Amino acid sequence: MAKREGADPKTNRLKARVPRGFVDRGAGELAAAERMLAEIRAAYELYGFEAVETPLVEYTDALGKFLPDQDRPNEGVFSFQDEDEQWLSLRYDLTAPLARYVSENFEALAKPYRSYRVGWVFRNEKPGPGRFRQFMQFDADTVGSASVAADAEMCMMAADTLDRLGLAGQYVVKVNNRKVLDGVMEAIGLAGDEEAARRLVVLRAIDKLDKVGVDGVRDLLGAGRMDPSGDYTKGAGLAPEQAERVIAFSEAKRATLEETFGALEAVVAGSARGAEGVAELREIAMLVAAGGYDTRVEIDPSVVRGLEYYTGPVFEAELTFPVTNEDGVPVRFGSIGGGGRYDGLVGRFRSEPVPATGFSIGVSRLLSALRLVGSPIVASAQPQAPVVVMVMDRERIADYQRLVAQLREAGIRAEMYLGSAGMKAQMKYADRRKSPCVVIQGSDERERGEVQIKDLIEGAKAAAEIETNAEWKAARPAQVSVPEATMVDAVREILARHR
Amino acid sequence: MAKREGADPKTNRLKARVPRGFVDRGAGELAAAERMLAEIRAAYELYGFEAVETPLVEYTDALGKFLPDQDRPNEGVFSFQDEDEQWLSLRYDLTAPLARYVSENFEALAKPYRSYRVGWVFRNEKPGPGRFRQFMQFDADTVGSASVAADAEMCMMAADTLDRLGLAGQYVVKVNNRKVLDGVMEAIGLAGDEEAARRLVVLRAIDKLDKVGVDGVRDLLGAGRMDPSGDYTKGAGLAPEQAERVIAFSEAKRATLEETFGALEAVVAGSARGAEGVAELREIAMLVAAGGYDTRVEIDPSVVRGLEYYTGPVFEAELTFPVTNEDGVPVRFGSIGGGGRYDGLVGRFRSEPVPATGFSIGVSRLLSALRLVGSPIVASAQPQAPVVVMVMDRERIADYQRLVAQLREAGIRAEMYLGSAGMKAQMKYADRRKSPCVVIQGSDERERGEVQIKDLIEGAKAAAEIETNAEWKAARPAQVSVPEATMVDAVREILARHR
Repeated sequence: MAKREGADPKTNRLKARVPRGFVDRGAGELAAAERMLAEIRAAYELYGFEAVETPLVEYTDALGKFLPDQDRPNEGVFSFQDEDEQWLSLRYDLTAPLARYVSENFEALAKPYRSYRVGWVFRNEKPGPGRFRQFMQFDADTVGSASVAADAEMCMMAADTLDRLGLAGQYVVKVNNRKVLDGVMEAIGLAGDEEAARRLVVLRAIDKLDKVGVDGVRDLLGAGRMDPSGDYTKGAGLAPEQAERVIAFSEAKRATLEETFGALEAVVAGSARGAEGVAELREIAMLVAAGGYDTRVEIDPSVVRGLEYYTGPVFEAELTFPVTNEDGVPVRFGSIGGGGRYDGLVGRFRSEPVPATGFSIGVSRLLSALRLVGSPIVASAQPQAPVVVMVMDRERIADYQRLVAQLREAGIRAEMYLGSAGMKAQMKYADRRKSPCVVIQGSDERERGEVQIKDLIEGAKAAAEIETNAEWKAARPAQVSVPEATMVDAVREILARHR
Repeated sequence: MAKREGADPKTNRLKARVPRGFVDRGAGELAAAERMLAEIRAAYELYGFEAVETPLVEYTDALGKFLPDQDRPNEGVFSFQDEDEQWLSLRYDLTAPLARYVSENFEALAKPYRSYRVGWVFRNEKPGPGRFRQFMQFDADTVGSASVAADAEMCMMAADTLDRLGLAGQYVVKVNNRKVLDGVMEAIGLAGDEEAARRLVVLRAIDKLDKVGVDGVRDLLGAGRMDPSGDYTKGAGLAPEQAERVIAFSEAKRATLEETFGALEAVVAGSARGAEGVAELREIAMLVAAGGYDTRVEIDPSVVRGLEYYTGPVFEAELTFPVTNEDGVPVRFGSIGGGGRYDGLVGRFRSEPVPATGFSIGVSRLLSALRLVGSPIVASAQPQAPVVVMVMDRERIADYQRLVAQLREAGIRAEMYLGSAGMKAQMKYADRRKSPCVVIQGSDERERGEVQIKDLIEGAKAAAEIETNAEWKAARPAQVSVPEATMVDAVREILARHR
């Protein structure tokens, strides 16, 4: 037999392993995620957004190439051909597929089209801590509105959602505007199509401010930067005075809004587009204040977002409570989502421009945050563990099946033990399942028309107190015999006791 | 500019289209599916199964090649390489990934391991009517039980699930056993490793009984068969007397269980494995009868299932009510799920055998069935459409924002109109959104501290009755003016009226 890829070299047997960068999820995590998603869904529906879903696969050309940090074409995306040799890709976000959907169904949709969607997205990247190849996003988008009121709404809805999840006072939604950045580019002579690639390098340098600090950004705007692992990133090649102006932009946040706007106006001086961007930020700030969200939604020019397709306001929702990073240093928990205006994305498919804005939550990140703060939404989300009916006599399996059916008919989660082990191992099984109780019927009980019910939670408590084996046998803690006809009631009583 | 793939030849603009064999889903369908899935989940949890989820992607070698109708290796599966050039595939079912999961986490799981999962699976096949490249399955599996009681339980749980979905009396769960088929193979001299490929051809010929009829199966068992479209399928090359014995097996269902078992015993005469298979079917029939499921779960030797990995009992759940097929002929709705025992699948990764059995529901098929029978579970599953606050004066957008916030605080789905259209188009928008009412505040109303609320449902009724435009203007049907302070109450009243 030939050696198989992925086989254990000793046994030549297949090795069972989840692919790198992918994860399995158990019952507790699924239940917690489901409860969190239900809250987000409720928040978005209150705002009049409706559900829609697109497939996990799109034609490669429809997705476009907007991912950050990707030099080679199609890098970062999983792509493959179908039977007809058409190129398909796993979606890398939910925005590009939405643009395709809206364009394909344009006439049938009421516009502005307000929709939300939750689903898996994929990135063909090197996995790392907290960096997965399959992860879930929860997006809301308004397509067909050019109004900054739609952008302001996204930020306020994000705030409402985080409040609803019990994170009030522990987050900030930061808002910036790509047009202001465009103004800075103009001011330093980086306007025009021929500078598009360099502008992208500048954008992504600013986006790394949190990660690499101001000096790191300065390097990335200049010649380039070597990171501690020895990886070298080529810089934008800006002259020092150009770089300083970009840095002045990203650090333009001041103590008051008016001062911040003043700093921004100075940095885009002479650019009409930059001035337009600042004016839009002023209007967002006004709407946010009018809604009473001004402590939760802030203008912050350090936010730019790494995706290429944004054209106007951009947002980032950050959790502000401290966590310890890999090096043991306390840091802010950081971003759990973001978004912005992408006026060009739908237009790629159509003759007219279609303005759009949206916000995307990173579901796993937000879920870990809720766990960290001990949110009741994600605590003990699992359903009651099943009652186990033990099988004492394999010839009478139809009898045990009848007992378990009675429990289920009463709405009690229950199962018959289906393995081949003896009584002791069956008890151990029930323990591992965290069963509240087991039902036992040996031949003696059957003759008397009875069942024994053993309360495992009470039993475990008693076991911690009883010291000798003899004492144990005498006490038979938390075990009762009842007639078959009252089994359901007796089990109900035990379940009620431990609820 | 070079012509782009997928671009419109006239404009050279990208064409927006969902990939062939994939579909988008709207709010109504998503809500209906969610309600159906919640019922299935509740049924499975009552049986003590717990949720688990694996990623959509697995290492290609871990999935194995068990798909029916695939001649070339990897045909039928979407595969691609990651950055490290490892081969990955989109899963084609939920069973192979479960086998990987159980094997990888074997020590940590209480066994028998009872779990359920719902998720997308993918097939790289030619799409056709009702045949998708991405579709959803809902599986339950018991891993680590060799007992046929576990197989019987799967069939009874499937029946309970369909009952719960309101399909009582409209389905049958058919049970057969691959060991009986193995016995037939032995009896006609097709035992042994060297005949494995031919046995697979025989298996898949029987699996097509529903589609091609007995004569078609006879051709597929013999030289081969040409279908009406001209496609030729090579046959198993059995001699006529061999083929007749296989057909006798698949048609062994008789009026009574005892007669069916008698017919099966005759057809496997001389094969120990065949006899074992019949004995297992007898035990399943006994357990099913003891549970009172014998009119819902039937022994039927025509069921074999197309997947290669089954090793024992196999099941198929069929809906029996009639539908009209593509040719206008009434046929049974047919299969909405199936499964069986796959004792070898986990063992591929381990030194010891791990017996397992499971049942898989085709979610989209079942959902269309529920729609066809007008099930209340999938009817009107959508939430209330949003109240629309119209924007009469763009300078006062913060005021409208405040009105809409008041509605949301009262738990009423509401949105502010965010497009750029005038009043008439805003009304049309609200109509398309199916809004129950709109809130209007022009400068007159603002001065008076009032809002107008227009009941769109009542208004549409009135419009159908009012004949002239003058009459319409005089009546102003279903429109009231109220003080801002009572807006929420007035809207609530309208919502209550139309609930």
